[in-house]
Amino acid sequence: MRKVPGMVGFRSGGHEVSGLSMGDDNDGNPPKQPIIVGNELIHRRSLLGGGIALAGAVAGGTTAVAEPLAVEKWSRQPGSLIAPYGHPAAEEDDILRTLVNPDAQRMNVSAARTPLQRLDGTITPNGLHYVVARNGVPNIDPNKHRLLIHGLVKQSLLFSLDALRRYPMISRTTFLESGGNSALLYSPSPVQASVQALHGLCSCAEWTGVRLSTLIEEAGIDAKAKWLIAEGADAPSVTSSVPLAKAMDDAIIALYQNGEPIYPANGYPMRLLLPGYEGSANVKWLRRIELVEAPAMDINDVRYSTVFLPSGKSLQFFFTQEVKSFITRPSPGLNLKEPGYCEISGLAFSGSGKINRVDVSVDGGKSWEQAALQEPVLSKAFTRFRMPWEWNGAPAILQSRATDEAGNIQPTRAALMAERGEAEGIPSFTSFRLRHCNAITAWGINANGKVSHVYA
Amino acid sequence: MRKVPGMVGFRSGGHEVSGLSMGDDNDGNPPKQPIIVGNELIHRRSLLGGGIALAGAVAGGTTAVAEPLAVEKWSRQPGSLIAPYGHPAAEEDDILRTLVNPDAQRMNVSAARTPLQRLDGTITPNGLHYVVARNGVPNIDPNKHRLLIHGLVKQSLLFSLDALRRYPMISRTTFLESGGNSALLYSPSPVQASVQALHGLCSCAEWTGVRLSTLIEEAGIDAKAKWLIAEGADAPSVTSSVPLAKAMDDAIIALYQNGEPIYPANGYPMRLLLPGYEGSANVKWLRRIELVEAPAMDINDVRYSTVFLPSGKSLQFFFTQEVKSFITRPSPGLNLKEPGYCEISGLAFSGSGKINRVDVSVDGGKSWEQAALQEPVLSKAFTRFRMPWEWNGAPAILQSRATDEAGNIQPTRAALMAERGEAEGIPSFTSFRLRHCNAITAWGINANGKVSHVYA
Repeated sequence: MRKVPGMVGFRSGGHEVSGLSMGDDNDGNPPKQPIIVGNELIHRRSLLGGGIALAGAVAGGTTAVAEPLAVEKWSRQPGSLIAPYGHPAAEEDDILRTLVNPDAQRMNVSAARTPLQRLDGTITPNGLHYVVARNGVPNIDPNKHRLLIHGLVKQSLLFSLDALRRYPMISRTTFLESGGNSALLYSPSPVQASVQALHGLCSCAEWTGVRLSTLIEEAGIDAKAKWLIAEGADAPSVTSSVPLAKAMDDAIIALYQNGEPIYPANGYPMRLLLPGYEGSANVKWLRRIELVEAPAMDINDVRYSTVFLPSGKSLQFFFTQEVKSFITRPSPGLNLKEPGYCEISGLAFSGSGKINRVDVSVDGGKSWEQAALQEPVLSKAFTRFRMPWEWNGAPAILQSRATDEAGNIQPTRAALMAERGEAEGIPSFTSFRLRHCNAITAWGINANGKVSHVYA
Repeated sequence: MRKVPGMVGFRSGGHEVSGLSMGDDNDGNPPKQPIIVGNELIHRRSLLGGGIALAGAVAGGTTAVAEPLAVEKWSRQPGSLIAPYGHPAAEEDDILRTLVNPDAQRMNVSAARTPLQRLDGTITPNGLHYVVARNGVPNIDPNKHRLLIHGLVKQSLLFSLDALRRYPMISRTTFLESGGNSALLYSPSPVQASVQALHGLCSCAEWTGVRLSTLIEEAGIDAKAKWLIAEGADAPSVTSSVPLAKAMDDAIIALYQNGEPIYPANGYPMRLLLPGYEGSANVKWLRRIELVEAPAMDINDVRYSTVFLPSGKSLQFFFTQEVKSFITRPSPGLNLKEPGYCEISGLAFSGSGKINRVDVSVDGGKSWEQAALQEPVLSKAFTRFRMPWEWNGAPAILQSRATDEAGNIQPTRAALMAERGEAEGIPSFTSFRLRHCNAITAWGINANGKVSHVYA
């Protein structure tokens, strides 16, 4: 056991810490909430039973008081009317998606990034879900919109929205991520930007709709069919080729997002949902699914689902988003105001299944400690991890490293660059050679508490 | 095995029906998706392996086609700009909360009901979460708002929003329900109204915040403390008395709702969350928690958490919302257009824990069949149930009956009325004598497919 001066821990004695799990533990014992000391992450079992109160740790901003609580004006006057459809508080009106290429978006790819550093939990509200659009958001009449299933089927079928709503439904909470997310980590030097700018092309929602397999079985599969081509109703008519096996596994024609009909920018009135697959394959405003023998080799197939290697070879049909995590708080723009207690919190996810564990380092990767995972941990969904930390005021480097149930471990940036090759400058998210970056992200904290993006 | 003519079933052979569970099954076999035949619910195992295609069942609205798919105008022109904060489609702008007492709300209780019959899945979007307010929505400056913890504590503590944001957080998906929800079922004859009007004072969200136990432990508990009094910062300053044991068990000071800061009508910048407890105890705009020896016996304590019995006796401190379910589709206003396949879908929840099973009847309660439960089934959260059904065009009466993990079974309306007593007319949701109604709801379907509220 390490000798730890001045320890201030996180009390875990009085009541059960429910709703958080620690994933697998090597010795078979049920792990407890970790206790963090000084500027190091201490192995949680070394200090169990200490029961040191949190009071000293979180004193900043908390005041012991003897005087009466102030009665503000809003407690002395009638409030506002309730709106039929509610909105965020005016004081939070800077929690917005940032728009990429907004002016040119009628003629080019545009995107909106989710302000993940301002959110908590795992659900992304519909108004803040990330968007990538090739030619803006189509204004679709849901009564005229149709979905056609044809090609190598026994009978072509045409579905109205009303018809689809009569089918058996399923709900599933799943993340979506653009293959171009986190491309800035290919830059030769760390780009100073927020979590939103670096990692904001991913989001998570509860989606509800009809299993694609139900519809394809109704159409009847020709034995020659091995792929499908999905096409959206927006102007570019870009198609995406998807293995038929994926369609029959867990694909959904989604009609609802977080309970309500999908918002226009995310595919209203219906979209393809391929849990774990790169965003661009999840065709929005879906109007056509054609069963075919081989992929179409359209732009999605040759660019977006491909990883280009320095050797000149490529990894084709690289659909599955790899295991990933990043710390959302603290993070650039969310600086530490003073030494003391601070929860390290972030998101982890994998296109291959559930997150098994997340480890956190505050010393630039020299030592790691297992974070608590917020239950329920769902397959192919955002998993919130949390790690109590006592910042002692000295410089620190924070990192998170996720492992999924398939055993995949998030790589260091150095390892990923060795495989994929760095960019020569700052890449765009549409740079098709620099995609699928799931490297570990590092935040440097200086003695003033300022957080910056570093390579470590 | 019953003899079943003209059966049209729901195919469950080709691939695994993942993500849906059937709860406990008496014979220990893993249950499968039920198969529904004619106007009866057929025991699911009696037809397993039939693999009958769904095509004939869901033909309405689905067309076998040979001609090309129409290319509508939105596929031929650039789309709209992406908004920094998205909104629902204009075509869905009638999916709104209905306001109760909107004109008088500045001087009286007002409420907004969730349009549950227009939603699917289990999450209620923040803009549509139900609201009850005693004097409108206060417009709180989050920088000035404080939370005071005092009374029978070792040291009083005052928290700013910034201070709370540094504490360890937890996320939890949980329903909230007004104790006045479903009061219309006390009416002597069935009120003809939508699910929204009958049951719309309940919603479900992912909430994130600080465990109340963490803060109370920091303040230090005086051994005499057995209750707490929670007070909101809105003008009425109505308090709610809560057992200290509940506060130390699973209470949360919630700061985030479905990922983003809580909306003003639901308690911005912070609210008390008591999973499973009647809505009124979950004080919004929370500003004060006082530890005390005994409840304050304020209006919440003597009215809203009380059940009045015909005998003149009352059930006091009736906090926990009892097990409940209702069918959201089909339902009044969502009529059946023609005979054929139709998914019966609805919501179940219990303040006592997880939903264990939901049974559905289409013959007015003479026979019941177990519905599929959407996974994950979470404690004290909305659980979506689904039951495939083939309507043969004859009159039918649909009901759902939920059972929770504590063994509580949703009562028939007749049984509940025998215990509680009917109203003399149509009650208001603020009628404190007619609360906590969790009776089974019945929808009558006539030969034209019109759905009405019936007592069965």
